[in-house]
Amino acid sequence: MSTETSAEIKIFERRESEARSYCRGFDTVFTSARGSELTDAAGRSYIDFLAGCSSLNYGHNDPDMKIALIEHLTDDGLAHALDLHTDAKGAFLESFETHILKPRGLDHRVMFTGPTGANAVEAAMKLARKATGRDTIIAFTNGFHGVTLGALAATGNSYHRGGAGITLNGVTRMPYDGYLGDGIDTADVLEKMLEDASSGLDKPAAILLETVQGEGGLNAADPDWIKRIADLAKAHGALLIVDDIQAGCGRTGSFFSFEGMGITPDIVTMAKSVSGFGLPMALVLVRPEFDVFGPAEHNGTFRGNTHAFVTARVAIEKFWADGSFQEELAEKALILTTALQELAEMLPDSRLKGRGLMQGVDVRSGDLASEICAEAFRNGLVIETSGPEDQVVKVLAPLTTPQDTFRKGLSILLEAARTTLSQNSNSIAAE
Amino acid sequence: MSTETSAEIKIFERRESEARSYCRGFDTVFTSARGSELTDAAGRSYIDFLAGCSSLNYGHNDPDMKIALIEHLTDDGLAHALDLHTDAKGAFLESFETHILKPRGLDHRVMFTGPTGANAVEAAMKLARKATGRDTIIAFTNGFHGVTLGALAATGNSYHRGGAGITLNGVTRMPYDGYLGDGIDTADVLEKMLEDASSGLDKPAAILLETVQGEGGLNAADPDWIKRIADLAKAHGALLIVDDIQAGCGRTGSFFSFEGMGITPDIVTMAKSVSGFGLPMALVLVRPEFDVFGPAEHNGTFRGNTHAFVTARVAIEKFWADGSFQEELAEKALILTTALQELAEMLPDSRLKGRGLMQGVDVRSGDLASEICAEAFRNGLVIETSGPEDQVVKVLAPLTTPQDTFRKGLSILLEAARTTLSQNSNSIAAE
Amino acid sequence: MSTETSAEIKIFERRESEARSYCRGFDTVFTSARGSELTDAAGRSYIDFLAGCSSLNYGHNDPDMKIALIEHLTDDGLAHALDLHTDAKGAFLESFETHILKPRGLDHRVMFTGPTGANAVEAAMKLARKATGRDTIIAFTNGFHGVTLGALAATGNSYHRGGAGITLNGVTRMPYDGYLGDGIDTADVLEKMLEDASSGLDKPAAILLETVQGEGGLNAADPDWIKRIADLAKAHGALLIVDDIQAGCGRTGSFFSFEGMGITPDIVTMAKSVSGFGLPMALVLVRPEFDVFGPAEHNGTFRGNTHAFVTARVAIEKFWADGSFQEELAEKALILTTALQELAEMLPDSRLKGRGLMQGVDVRSGDLASEICAEAFRNGLVIETSGPEDQVVKVLAPLTTPQDTFRKGLSILLEAARTTLSQNSNSIAAE
Amino acid sequence: MSTETSAEIKIFERRESEARSYCRGFDTVFTSARGSELTDAAGRSYIDFLAGCSSLNYGHNDPDMKIALIEHLTDDGLAHALDLHTDAKGAFLESFETHILKPRGLDHRVMFTGPTGANAVEAAMKLARKATGRDTIIAFTNGFHGVTLGALAATGNSYHRGGAGITLNGVTRMPYDGYLGDGIDTADVLEKMLEDASSGLDKPAAILLETVQGEGGLNAADPDWIKRIADLAKAHGALLIVDDIQAGCGRTGSFFSFEGMGITPDIVTMAKSVSGFGLPMALVLVRPEFDVFGPAEHNGTFRGNTHAFVTARVAIEKFWADGSFQEELAEKALILTTALQELAEMLPDSRLKGRGLMQGVDVRSGDLASEICAEAFRNGLVIETSGPEDQVVKVLAPLTTPQDTFRKGLSILLEAARTTLSQNSNSIAAE
Repeated sequence: MSTETSAEIKIFERRESEARSYCRGFDTVFTSARGSELTDAAGRSYIDFLAGCSSLNYGHNDPDMKIALIEHLTDDGLAHALDLHTDAKGAFLESFETHILKPRGLDHRVMFTGPTGANAVEAAMKLARKATGRDTIIAFTNGFHGVTLGALAATGNSYHRGGAGITLNGVTRMPYDGYLGDGIDTADVLEKMLEDASSGLDKPAAILLETVQGEGGLNAADPDWIKRIADLAKAHGALLIVDDIQAGCGRTGSFFSFEGMGITPDIVTMAKSVSGFGLPMALVLVRPEFDVFGPAEHNGTFRGNTHAFVTARVAIEKFWADGSFQEELAEKALILTTALQELAEMLPDSRLKGRGLMQGVDVRSGDLASEICAEAFRNGLVIETSGPEDQVVKVLAPLTTPQDTFRKGLSILLEAARTTLSQNSNSIAAE
Repeated sequence: MSTETSAEIKIFERRESEARSYCRGFDTVFTSARGSELTDAAGRSYIDFLAGCSSLNYGHNDPDMKIALIEHLTDDGLAHALDLHTDAKGAFLESFETHILKPRGLDHRVMFTGPTGANAVEAAMKLARKATGRDTIIAFTNGFHGVTLGALAATGNSYHRGGAGITLNGVTRMPYDGYLGDGIDTADVLEKMLEDASSGLDKPAAILLETVQGEGGLNAADPDWIKRIADLAKAHGALLIVDDIQAGCGRTGSFFSFEGMGITPDIVTMAKSVSGFGLPMALVLVRPEFDVFGPAEHNGTFRGNTHAFVTARVAIEKFWADGSFQEELAEKALILTTALQELAEMLPDSRLKGRGLMQGVDVRSGDLASEICAEAFRNGLVIETSGPEDQVVKVLAPLTTPQDTFRKGLSILLEAARTTLSQNSNSIAAE
Repeated sequence: MSTETSAEIKIFERRESEARSYCRGFDTVFTSARGSELTDAAGRSYIDFLAGCSSLNYGHNDPDMKIALIEHLTDDGLAHALDLHTDAKGAFLESFETHILKPRGLDHRVMFTGPTGANAVEAAMKLARKATGRDTIIAFTNGFHGVTLGALAATGNSYHRGGAGITLNGVTRMPYDGYLGDGIDTADVLEKMLEDASSGLDKPAAILLETVQGEGGLNAADPDWIKRIADLAKAHGALLIVDDIQAGCGRTGSFFSFEGMGITPDIVTMAKSVSGFGLPMALVLVRPEFDVFGPAEHNGTFRGNTHAFVTARVAIEKFWADGSFQEELAEKALILTTALQELAEMLPDSRLKGRGLMQGVDVRSGDLASEICAEAFRNGLVIETSGPEDQVVKVLAPLTTPQDTFRKGLSILLEAARTTLSQNSNSIAAE
Repeated sequence: MSTETSAEIKIFERRESEARSYCRGFDTVFTSARGSELTDAAGRSYIDFLAGCSSLNYGHNDPDMKIALIEHLTDDGLAHALDLHTDAKGAFLESFETHILKPRGLDHRVMFTGPTGANAVEAAMKLARKATGRDTIIAFTNGFHGVTLGALAATGNSYHRGGAGITLNGVTRMPYDGYLGDGIDTADVLEKMLEDASSGLDKPAAILLETVQGEGGLNAADPDWIKRIADLAKAHGALLIVDDIQAGCGRTGSFFSFEGMGITPDIVTMAKSVSGFGLPMALVLVRPEFDVFGPAEHNGTFRGNTHAFVTARVAIEKFWADGSFQEELAEKALILTTALQELAEMLPDSRLKGRGLMQGVDVRSGDLASEICAEAFRNGLVIETSGPEDQVVKVLAPLTTPQDTFRKGLSILLEAARTTLSQNSNSIAAE
């Protein structure tokens, strides 16, 4: 982009709120997208390692979902149906039951909340409080659960918290796995406080956690730690809520991020990639005994986004009917780890973080991470940072990215890191 | 429907949460919809006087929007783009500026929040608190603003409030226009409390109101009262937030429900029909001086639902580029008033309520209102109730309903009322 | 006082917090007091129409209480006993039961809270919340209940509320009797909101009121209004808490301010004059069915101020064993009314307010009220203002003030008003 | 006491609230007290190792204070003076400045709050929030700060917290020194969370701590830990509040419990023994730059308990004008440690806890601790437990207890422990 603002961009500067954000770092106008590639108004194409922050796990405009949606439109299928029964919703539920819930031995009910992750989290927190008659929700350092008032109380980031303009209540913060360094099992801290009647920690309604903290900097909790937290929740009459909004839908290598850990969350929140196509959709999965809302007690106009049901059903049937997709993910995760280790080795203090297709490198400096991403963008790769100081370069490529595109993207990233580091050392030498 | 549960419905009973609601009253599976008509799996068609609770003001599957959306899909236009610049968003903003904001002399910025009304309300409340440094938001009796924790504090309904499972804070309740009966101007109550340093009403960050309370029972405030509230807000350093989620997008006869009242709200929340097609989309309009969020301070994955931008642009250009649609609305409102007066006359104590295409009859009994709607449904009309006791039969037909369909729907409603009343008087006589 | 700061006063300026207050208006050092008279370090004497804000209803250093206390000290009676049984506490309880509770048909239990009115209010609010399982307490405009966080939420004054530095929660404000002008019975407002399931007023744990709002400007509620509020509380499962801290102990003419109204509050809070001697002591009277705290669930080191039990017992036996004191109060109230009517007539818009020995004149200007009090002080009368703008000159003389002293004090007050008004009209004429 | 209820006790059962507590364990009626001895109605005497929970550090009815108070009464000195200047308050302030503040290099202002510790804590929390414009107060596990709503949020004990009947907000809990075991410096946990912008710990207004947690089980923090906390407070713009209500006034061996640690708290709260005589009195000491309340912004009727000023002045002059009393305390602390070590050795897992004249033994069982205290009471010693499970036998003898009385009391305690242990082992053997 030139330094002059193009005509296309002026409208955004004139009329869009200052709250706009990603567009500031990727300063162009995108016009189409397919699979793992984006194209802008100037005809330039980019590899997408952001994937709508994990909302596009199956890439842009997946052809099968696209066909199904066009068919639905052509047939005048319903677009908006509140929470009325529709054939599209029924078909989604059948698929979700058959291919997701049953094979994993889950008896959860599906609640269609307003189609945002935050709304699912709000519903989950309300359910837990209603079901237990308790107020306090335990959330963890560096957790991110949304920015509406209930969810924001559980979010750790001070920049987002500051936007509330009011005190955030009802959540007690505990250190996440690894937060206090290697010698300390933070589950001990939680256990101690739960068992001490004078700790000041009120009996919790729920313990709310991400198995991998996406926004928090790709902190991946140890399965043993998660199991202990689950056991503590059970022992103390609290519900376990796994927020699988970013880590779910295959991102960590399995449909749910908590598979294989020996736990059954009482509540799971899902959003982002659940529609498969990037369409707004959110779910709360809740065990029948905690499905305690009355009709419409938690409601919302868009709790039935029928278009999303159509694509979500295709996504499930296409990718989760058998184990082949999961195998592919394991391979790609290996490729990713290898590439990122190479990146990590360029910087003495940096650290590989995350799990599955949700990995990155903590480069120990938000500025550096930012420069690497900017250089990558100049070379045709869309990639972002995360973490408290934005110091983690985070790869969130579509899970369906073909291996050659994936490798190409990773090359651009490595090259961008090399360039940035050499420029920095030059500029340091020049001082 | 037969008393046996059809195969199609079993999946909902087995797997959908107890929070499901509308489907309980309209117990069939809908498969397609066009304009003002719905069709179910058995091939039966229904006139739609619910319109997705005012989310389908332009009817189902408007052909122009449908074509534009299919075209967008065919061309691999982006579906999900976070808040990146896209051509679709740019085109929507241009249209919204040209046809909506400029002609009404509004200088507001457009903030794309998470695509639910509640999210827009949460953002508006946060903005007002951040901009003023104050905590308290004034909301009104019978107001409905959503069920996430921040918005729920502003919602009056005790059933929804009870779902929070925690104390709702930060909102002070005031009586809406007419709430205390004819002799009392409730703006006097607010004024008295604002001007009294010892009233216990803390200086408010904002006054939040609907000009017509849709869920609250179709209470339409007098424009003079609204003007006074706006003046009080200004005089006391509070922002005026108009929640136009249900009453906006033409529902009351003009694009915004507050037009012609001599007020300029500092913040306007929109959702429901703003996409035109029933797709999830929400907006906060905010005057530039209160556009105080930093980048992503209020964020969310689906704050860019590109499909909705496509249809929303078509809706604006098709219906709001000139005054003809607004003229049609005036005619239809008259038809509606006439029919509902007839309904009201059937019952001595009943009362016509609302404004524009958002009118109904308070039949003084939730049971009666419910029976009338059930009878109407048996005769092919989808219609719902509202109000604290669900005692208001509420007509929310698509604004585009052809006059003959509209009259036909109203006939079914009147006939349903007659049947219900005569059955009730028979059963009373029989006792 | 001279404009130079006396040596005695320097220590206060040097070391006492800026929160000090009354001493700013009465800028001398008091050294002794007897009955209704104060004496300062310069040997000047003052008639006391402030009476420790109604904490000295029986005057300073009542000789019988003084003797009893000196005897207690001489005999090494306990000064501090936590909530252990002591003979002094037992004797107080016997007297309180015999002379106060039984004759009035009250079955309340006595809870000794920390010895401040605020602590009694905190305990009462906690009890009501615990007993009902509800959160919301209804309090009234212009109410004053203390400045600790729980009680402060119920206090209306914005200056005090601002001191919290945090949002005050858990209280909903309703208009007090007469607040909305003559045409409106504010009990109707409360009834409407309690009965409307969508009003946004959550089911209250309690309704908390003063029968005469002392700090709020001597607003005396009509007994019929109070009866209606009591009935509304009962009908809606809320406890009725009468805060009788300022209005109790004979101040309105009977021991409790609510006698003869046909109500039995579930909880009564008392402090100020309950010790009789100005010693710190507070009580919560609670009906047995709501006496739900466990042992020490609400506790505090000074919940047994044995010296106060000694004097409180004497006060009850001396003044409330028969009806003679109450008859005296009726006479004095008449004298007060007559004098204040005279004051009120000096100013066209002013208004006589209050009840019993708790009356004053709203002079419609905080500055004027302040000048009158300052002029009175120069002439040997200690008297203060109250109300949202401090516009009410408030007489709170000891109830035991001899009639000649009382008349003398009232003369000084009337003369001060005359002087102030004539100075003001001179200065206006001079402009 | 016999199993029949004596006449004296019936009145308490009939009329005193169920909240009464200590009287349940010490079931007799006390009638007089002198120094370290209590006498009951039956003429029995007891050594007092409870000392009004550290409110009677100088014993009961100290003869010099008693004489001064009788003189004050005889001379008609004021009993109640709101916050007017009195000679008694002036003399107290002079003494406090001369003998307490100046020698310790403290420039604090003295705020007289309502005369309860909780009120002082409420004022301190409000001051910190007002001074910093922040909401959150950091308090520690097992801390006890009172039971009014603001202070209760900072108190750890779940039994007391449960009495609130409402969610407690505005406080974040951190582990106290030693809470997480020997290997972990909990100041590291606090530092990590304060320095991490995404920890979810909002910038605190204050850090509130006791140097020895009296109610929490005699946990004595290491001076180095306290110094680190003080440094962290300063580094992060938070005020340091030391709650010296139980540990102050000589209890740990010096007037303030934090002397010699190299810290200067921004705010200190005092109550309990500050009057010297067990009379209700509380103070907030605040550095001039944080003395930000306006006149009466935090107020209360009993903020001037003149009798307490009289005795408090005598206490300061008698005990703190030179270093001799402090030397005595050191000797007695040694005696105490020696005796308690003997007690601790009787039980393999038990542990000596506390500091100075505020020591005890954690016997690892609330039942056992309770039995020991009950046996001691049968043998003429009043002593209580503390800690989350009441498992700590706590010695809080008057600091002025003569050495022989002190040793006698300790003998009774050791003997009671021996008896209890032997009975327990007999009953175990018998099973």
